[in-house]
Amino acid sequence: MTEPTPVRRRRGRGARERILKAATKLFTAQGINATGMDQLSTVANVSKRTLYTHFPSKDELVQAYLQALEDSDLPPLQPSGEPSDEPALDPRTQLLAVFDWTPQDTTAPLRGCPFLNAGIEVPDPGHPVHQLVAAHKREFARRLAGIARQAGIADPETLGEQLALLYDGGAARAAALNSGHTATCARSIAELLIDTALAAGDPASPR
Amino acid sequence: MTEPTPVRRRRGRGARERILKAATKLFTAQGINATGMDQLSTVANVSKRTLYTHFPSKDELVQAYLQALEDSDLPPLQPSGEPSDEPALDPRTQLLAVFDWTPQDTTAPLRGCPFLNAGIEVPDPGHPVHQLVAAHKREFARRLAGIARQAGIADPETLGEQLALLYDGGAARAAALNSGHTATCARSIAELLIDTALAAGDPASPR
Repeated sequence: MTEPTPVRRRRGRGARERILKAATKLFTAQGINATGMDQLSTVANVSKRTLYTHFPSKDELVQAYLQALEDSDLPPLQPSGEPSDEPALDPRTQLLAVFDWTPQDTTAPLRGCPFLNAGIEVPDPGHPVHQLVAAHKREFARRLAGIARQAGIADPETLGEQLALLYDGGAARAAALNSGHTATCARSIAELLIDTALAAGDPASPR
Repeated sequence: MTEPTPVRRRRGRGARERILKAATKLFTAQGINATGMDQLSTVANVSKRTLYTHFPSKDELVQAYLQALEDSDLPPLQPSGEPSDEPALDPRTQLLAVFDWTPQDTTAPLRGCPFLNAGIEVPDPGHPVHQLVAAHKREFARRLAGIARQAGIADPETLGEQLALLYDGGAARAAALNSGHTATCARSIAELLIDTALAAGDPASPR
């Protein structure tokens, strides 16, 4: 009757979510290094003990924060050729879709890409947070290359890397200028690159 | 004979230089928010009192650090049409030259653009440091537009903004991946953009 385990467990799960939500809010608004564990525990409404139980170090919290953003930030994985019920968007539309981001909160300053920003705040390329950032950015280009390959583009790796660079340029410049127009600028360059690559490629013999 | 003023003044000037040099070293290696005034005074070999005499706040030091980098980071100003003894590089070469950066220290991690990075570390668009960053990034695009105008390109403002975005994408991605190949990638896109704009433009009637 007095067994507190289920309640504790439920509260524990809620605490982890609240901590990640507070981390996303504070890292976005202030940055990672400007945010301390004290403020995180206050905003998440958990004790420091609970905070450290879920995330023994701030580095682990930063990694969990980025991992939670990974899937929504990456272009879709390409199907392996197996039959699917989902209607396929044409590859050109899929490639351009990555530039159609709109800020969730239009009143807050634009902050660009949380992965780029974390890589700036944690400069050591050997640090687990920076390695997560680099792996994410390589995967971003790799997925774009996968879509380009489906489109029959002759050098999909080059186009993937070029479009990823445009994405990052749009994000970095959006944060610097606090302007969403940079996405439109990046998209216009992407269109030229994709159309040039499509015109040059021979769809009958990709690569 | 015992008047100490000249010596003091000379020491004072040396101190300011040492502080700026230490700031550049530490902000580059660690970032702005990870660097405290204590460490700055130690590395610069000045007392905290001397540090605060030259820079009453860290914000002022960050601004001075960025201001010292401004000229070397910006593309050259275009001549106003007045005669000059300097041989003019052709505009295409001038536009592409901004992508030919090489790191001064090849053993240190690549950190991309100090202006972009400062804008990430100081997110508030109304903060003097962030405003300096935004003004610098606008000036960067404006100078590229000036060179594009000299080349007779029909819409130099658009090309200037596009090339600035490529520059920022190369810088942001260089820092994330710790790879200098991103500059080559940005340059290849810039070539396509410039050549497309030159082919479309009418050199006889530049805006």
